[in-house]
Amino acid sequence: MATIRIPFEEMKQVFQRALVKVGFTAERADQLADIFAQNSLDGVASHGWNRFPIFMGHIAQGYIHLDAEPEKVAGFGAWEQWDGKLGPGPLNALAATKRAMELAREHGIGCVAIGNTNHWMRGGTYGQFAAQAGFVLLCWTNAVATMPPYGSRDIRLGNNPLVVAVPRREGPVVLDIAMSQFAFGKLEVARRRGEKLPVPGGFDASGQPTRDAAVIMEEGRALPIGYWKGSGLALMLDMTAALFSGGQATYQITQSKAERSVSQVFIAFDIAKPSGAASVETVVENILADLHVAQPNAPDAEVLFPGERVLKARQKNLADGIPVDETVWQEVLKLAAGPLKSRSTCPDRKQPAAEASPFTR
Amino acid sequence: MATIRIPFEEMKQVFQRALVKVGFTAERADQLADIFAQNSLDGVASHGWNRFPIFMGHIAQGYIHLDAEPEKVAGFGAWEQWDGKLGPGPLNALAATKRAMELAREHGIGCVAIGNTNHWMRGGTYGQFAAQAGFVLLCWTNAVATMPPYGSRDIRLGNNPLVVAVPRREGPVVLDIAMSQFAFGKLEVARRRGEKLPVPGGFDASGQPTRDAAVIMEEGRALPIGYWKGSGLALMLDMTAALFSGGQATYQITQSKAERSVSQVFIAFDIAKPSGAASVETVVENILADLHVAQPNAPDAEVLFPGERVLKARQKNLADGIPVDETVWQEVLKLAAGPLKSRSTCPDRKQPAAEASPFTR
Repeated sequence: MATIRIPFEEMKQVFQRALVKVGFTAERADQLADIFAQNSLDGVASHGWNRFPIFMGHIAQGYIHLDAEPEKVAGFGAWEQWDGKLGPGPLNALAATKRAMELAREHGIGCVAIGNTNHWMRGGTYGQFAAQAGFVLLCWTNAVATMPPYGSRDIRLGNNPLVVAVPRREGPVVLDIAMSQFAFGKLEVARRRGEKLPVPGGFDASGQPTRDAAVIMEEGRALPIGYWKGSGLALMLDMTAALFSGGQATYQITQSKAERSVSQVFIAFDIAKPSGAASVETVVENILADLHVAQPNAPDAEVLFPGERVLKARQKNLADGIPVDETVWQEVLKLAAGPLKSRSTCPDRKQPAAEASPFTR
Repeated sequence: MATIRIPFEEMKQVFQRALVKVGFTAERADQLADIFAQNSLDGVASHGWNRFPIFMGHIAQGYIHLDAEPEKVAGFGAWEQWDGKLGPGPLNALAATKRAMELAREHGIGCVAIGNTNHWMRGGTYGQFAAQAGFVLLCWTNAVATMPPYGSRDIRLGNNPLVVAVPRREGPVVLDIAMSQFAFGKLEVARRRGEKLPVPGGFDASGQPTRDAAVIMEEGRALPIGYWKGSGLALMLDMTAALFSGGQATYQITQSKAERSVSQVFIAFDIAKPSGAASVETVVENILADLHVAQPNAPDAEVLFPGERVLKARQKNLADGIPVDETVWQEVLKLAAGPLKSRSTCPDRKQPAAEASPFTR
């Protein structure tokens, strides 16, 4: 597999063209293309260029309602419930984040819980967005069941990601962790290369923790982080997502043939509100400075804050272009080739995309 | 060490007497005694009877201000900042929980972040309290640094606990997890007994994960849950606790000789607000029923929901009395023996304690 490098703007344009081709309005195609291209820029190919063909496949299968806009179902003040109407997950998640920020501006804290939505791709996207606008964001989603609870080999838990993002001038601090020790993509890469995982990532047939990715995938027994602790946390993220949104829980999502109609929670803090105390910048920088005092324990070890690797990848990929597997990129180019479908609601595609691209700095 | 069984009411009375003896008002002594006795009843000796002498030691050293009441510093609507005035951690945490619930009643969601407070003992206490009143509670605290971040052997992270509690008729679902794979008490027990830990709990001198508790304690390298994931989450819990409350971060707490003046966050949801959708009871029971379908993978394995073990311990200890190490109990009895200090502000100790005991069902 040859690796080529695609500049950010070129990648985004290709995504946008492909999205308009399947029927998205130019504005929504631009927002979605921006999210997929930003994820690629941040080094998260699994929710960027490498995921794009799968996302397009879900559209072809009718799992995602192209034009659906989320709708408020109920409001209790600083906490609102929204219906995602099975619209595109990233657009719904971005809308929910923005609304949570509005609520936080009004009440200090704001929560939007959205049910009946689709896969948000990468939770860090919304954390970055809120943090860049000066908000702390906590968000999580449930998912189809792919992981056994601790003490069992039966698949019952979603690999539900949890995101905590904090603003910072030189790039936000963004924790974005799913509940399994390794993403399935990471297991697949280790299996293909015949490499042992750096730490145990699941269980073997006898129930012992193992670093052998092939065995873990064969057994279907990924390890929740911290064994019983991550197993419990995965359950609580699912339960609260369903309760807060009024949407589906993992056991319900798992009953349909595709992962759709998931539930998500977005809690924003308008962290600029407190005055007089130490500035957000000072608090954050002092904590990170204290972390960075810690010496690496091995020549190849690094002590990093959550999101630090992403900020480094972003800088490199902005300068050099985004590394892409050529075979997958050919597939993406095919999706973008050919005549564009005409849409009566399609606005002038040449209009400035500044408003539509929330990540433009 | 002989184990004896002490009935709940007797244990509570002994705690209360010891607390009044060092100068607490009867009402505050009752609240504190109730929390320590409830923690004992729930099988959490490390924050119940076994912790009580240490707590009393901190009082003797003047670390805890007996009569200090938390004070609101700033309010932004549904999010408030409070100063714990170095008062007793459990009383401050309970007050913060109650205030978060009030805010949630008004705004749907409510957050109280409290700085300058002390160790809350067991986070699950406040989760149980809120859940029994029909609220979902998320809460966390920071702590003195005791854990190295992933990639280092230098102690920089607090073993910060995170709690998520959901109401349930037959006893709440309460996740209460610190960020290390094992509590230090658990490591100590395994070391003393010469038993291997069930899963890796830290690193050996060469940086490899190990199940040998003696080695982990000698190296001082406890394992964050999920390696880099728990390491990142511990950092974010600290950062958000400091930011939301305006209080100290772990690196600041670590600079003083004792663990005091910590920061805590309490976020309550008035989960009864949504109407029309499935009831909270139905959502929760369906999720738990789906979990319990999972078959244990070994004869000694159990598939439990967070807090299930606590509910079982509670039932047994209510019936049989709370199992206590006799040596420690003698120490507690000594603390409660002798004449009571007279206090002008001390109310009639015979007044009914119903209001003061939040856990009375």
